[in-house]
Amino acid sequence: MATINKNFKKLQRGYLFGEIARRTKEFVEKNPGVEVMKLGVGDTTEPLSPTIIKGLKKGVEKLANVKTYTGYQDAEGKEGNQELLNSLVNFYKEKKISFNKQEIFVNDGAKTDLANIQSIFGLDNIVAISDPVYPAYLDATVIAGRTGKFMNGKYEGLVYMKCNEQNGFVPVPPKQKVDIIYLCNPNNPTGSVATKKQLKAFVDYAIKNKAVIIFDAAYAQYISDKSFPKSIYEIKGAKKCAIEINSFSKWSGFTGVRLGWTVVPMDLVIENTQKGKVNSLWNRRQGTMFNGASNIAQEGAVAALSPAGKRESKKMVGYYMNNATIIKKNLSKLGLKVFGGQNAPYLWIKNPNNLSSWEFFDKLLNEAHVVGTPGIGFGMEGEGYLRLTSYGHTKDIEKAVKSIRENLKL
Amino acid sequence: MATINKNFKKLQRGYLFGEIARRTKEFVEKNPGVEVMKLGVGDTTEPLSPTIIKGLKKGVEKLANVKTYTGYQDAEGKEGNQELLNSLVNFYKEKKISFNKQEIFVNDGAKTDLANIQSIFGLDNIVAISDPVYPAYLDATVIAGRTGKFMNGKYEGLVYMKCNEQNGFVPVPPKQKVDIIYLCNPNNPTGSVATKKQLKAFVDYAIKNKAVIIFDAAYAQYISDKSFPKSIYEIKGAKKCAIEINSFSKWSGFTGVRLGWTVVPMDLVIENTQKGKVNSLWNRRQGTMFNGASNIAQEGAVAALSPAGKRESKKMVGYYMNNATIIKKNLSKLGLKVFGGQNAPYLWIKNPNNLSSWEFFDKLLNEAHVVGTPGIGFGMEGEGYLRLTSYGHTKDIEKAVKSIRENLKL
Repeated sequence: MATINKNFKKLQRGYLFGEIARRTKEFVEKNPGVEVMKLGVGDTTEPLSPTIIKGLKKGVEKLANVKTYTGYQDAEGKEGNQELLNSLVNFYKEKKISFNKQEIFVNDGAKTDLANIQSIFGLDNIVAISDPVYPAYLDATVIAGRTGKFMNGKYEGLVYMKCNEQNGFVPVPPKQKVDIIYLCNPNNPTGSVATKKQLKAFVDYAIKNKAVIIFDAAYAQYISDKSFPKSIYEIKGAKKCAIEINSFSKWSGFTGVRLGWTVVPMDLVIENTQKGKVNSLWNRRQGTMFNGASNIAQEGAVAALSPAGKRESKKMVGYYMNNATIIKKNLSKLGLKVFGGQNAPYLWIKNPNNLSSWEFFDKLLNEAHVVGTPGIGFGMEGEGYLRLTSYGHTKDIEKAVKSIRENLKL
Repeated sequence: MATINKNFKKLQRGYLFGEIARRTKEFVEKNPGVEVMKLGVGDTTEPLSPTIIKGLKKGVEKLANVKTYTGYQDAEGKEGNQELLNSLVNFYKEKKISFNKQEIFVNDGAKTDLANIQSIFGLDNIVAISDPVYPAYLDATVIAGRTGKFMNGKYEGLVYMKCNEQNGFVPVPPKQKVDIIYLCNPNNPTGSVATKKQLKAFVDYAIKNKAVIIFDAAYAQYISDKSFPKSIYEIKGAKKCAIEINSFSKWSGFTGVRLGWTVVPMDLVIENTQKGKVNSLWNRRQGTMFNGASNIAQEGAVAALSPAGKRESKKMVGYYMNNATIIKKNLSKLGLKVFGGQNAPYLWIKNPNNLSSWEFFDKLLNEAHVVGTPGIGFGMEGEGYLRLTSYGHTKDIEKAVKSIRENLKL
């Protein structure tokens, strides 16, 4: 008799967006004609830039011509889009970080690899995650069976690294020994960014404890303050202990195009295996379970990494960050404590009057008709906070902010 | 200390294509100026059809316009490309099979889902696979830890369903109880196709033993003989026990575009859970670990499923099947026993004079300068066979066949 993977029963979340949708629907039904404005969705809204569109069209055209048609990226005798791999090697070279093409794996966006990377590690490895954080790491860890039961708001066997006002929402390495550490930097949902010193503490910890850092750099391009590192490999020693997973989704508007990359350095060694072993495991895993990202999306990424593409993506990031500034400035004027929103597209609002995440969610919806995301949805430490995002058309952001200023009773 | 998933050490394959490349390279170095012809690659070679190109371009254009731009398919309030889901519902309706949109999951090609589907099932579930067969099922099963050691050519704990000349290379249900059964139909590498009666035996077995069939229908559109079923759901009762995974890769030349779909029927029940439970588990898995297929590829698939798109894909399939006929006819004339190649793009050659897979591989390479794929690479029962594929430009196929006819010493 086939049976179900029992770990799914341990999952707590999943209700979050359903519950948001349910409460929003209920409000709309009770208040016909009232327009609800969303400031809670982490999805890009602006069209792709001209250079990228040109690249994608080139990708399509290539498949229309027998001379340039390409199939599987990893079929016999083929090695994927070399131009893209070269561009990614250069992406790091510009930061004075040296990788060869074999160390970079093109993926279909960060999320899949952030979850699937666990499959190359032992099932008994202890995982540490930030609290609060993007829930995919946690859920993938639970589904894989690396946690015990959910009790008192926490999973047994999982190590939580608290991010709160006291530590500026940047975690510190755990006191106990762990094997796999997920870091999301800049952090979703708090919008916080780690300094070089703070990341160095993690690299030092990982080397000392022979742990591996899974570094989610999906929002790295939102860092405008040059003193913050954009890649874990800007920290000395990181090649020995860190896998970096990145994406064009938020940087270049690729949430619907689907493309990213994962770096597994040859220097990364676990269990005293030889150099390149972890890299080869990931290569084997991907060869077995993945047939590559779309060749069209890969051409789009080549364009995104061209000088014109990078200029245009920077402008797009600037557009969203201008939205963030609008939200931050106006909500701060109301006396709300607003974190993040300076080097990340996320704003982390401390709820007024010690309201819980859901209480403030309801208040914002009922009074200002604005939908946010309750902080508790990202972890226990998110209680008492609300996440807003800067994704949206500026006119819509301005409208939502105006409604908050005029209608929210503080 | 982070550790390696030890199951990777059990993997045997991976050397196959490497070994083919090594022997080919050695031959080229020893025989400078001699052209090597490949008849062993399972990848499409012909450009995409005009209707699909138009669809893909439309997909790109949509992302260039603020009014039609789309991001994540599963973001709050969005439900993916409805036109594609409707088209897939219609795809089954034409076969008199009724599904709703919630039962169909768009994926980025069959391979990922064929491997990842295992994650919703208990780790102790016993898996059955055909022998020989496309190696991804086996390798995914090994990596997940559902097998024991590799001994005497087989993995402990795995059930092999022999496909040989006696049973027309179509497996029969195992005698013992198993929980998950992979079926590849038409079969890669043998090119064999199961009759309705043969598939019914599997459905009956699955219902009786509460097992689940994972049905890989990636080559279904190569079936021209109308008496053969193209979908497992043409068999009564299959909705209760089967997940079908399909792809546009070989049907429409999407090996580089990346798009397919997975059907998890609401009626599929395991462990006496309520209807829809397995469907919701897969939905949860995908929501956690996958961010959807490229929106551009999805537009391409909508075009592929239009009447014009289907006509053009049929023509493309006809092109490859004409290649298959050329190979089959000519090699048969030489006295070789050639199976498959009638309702599948694969030809399964019984090696002459009881040569082993590698011996005949070497003979074909050395005498006719043609590269095939040794049957042993697909399982123990593949020993003594060689796989050829019909993918390639007809002129190249003709050239290779001519060289075999003129140079192979039988």
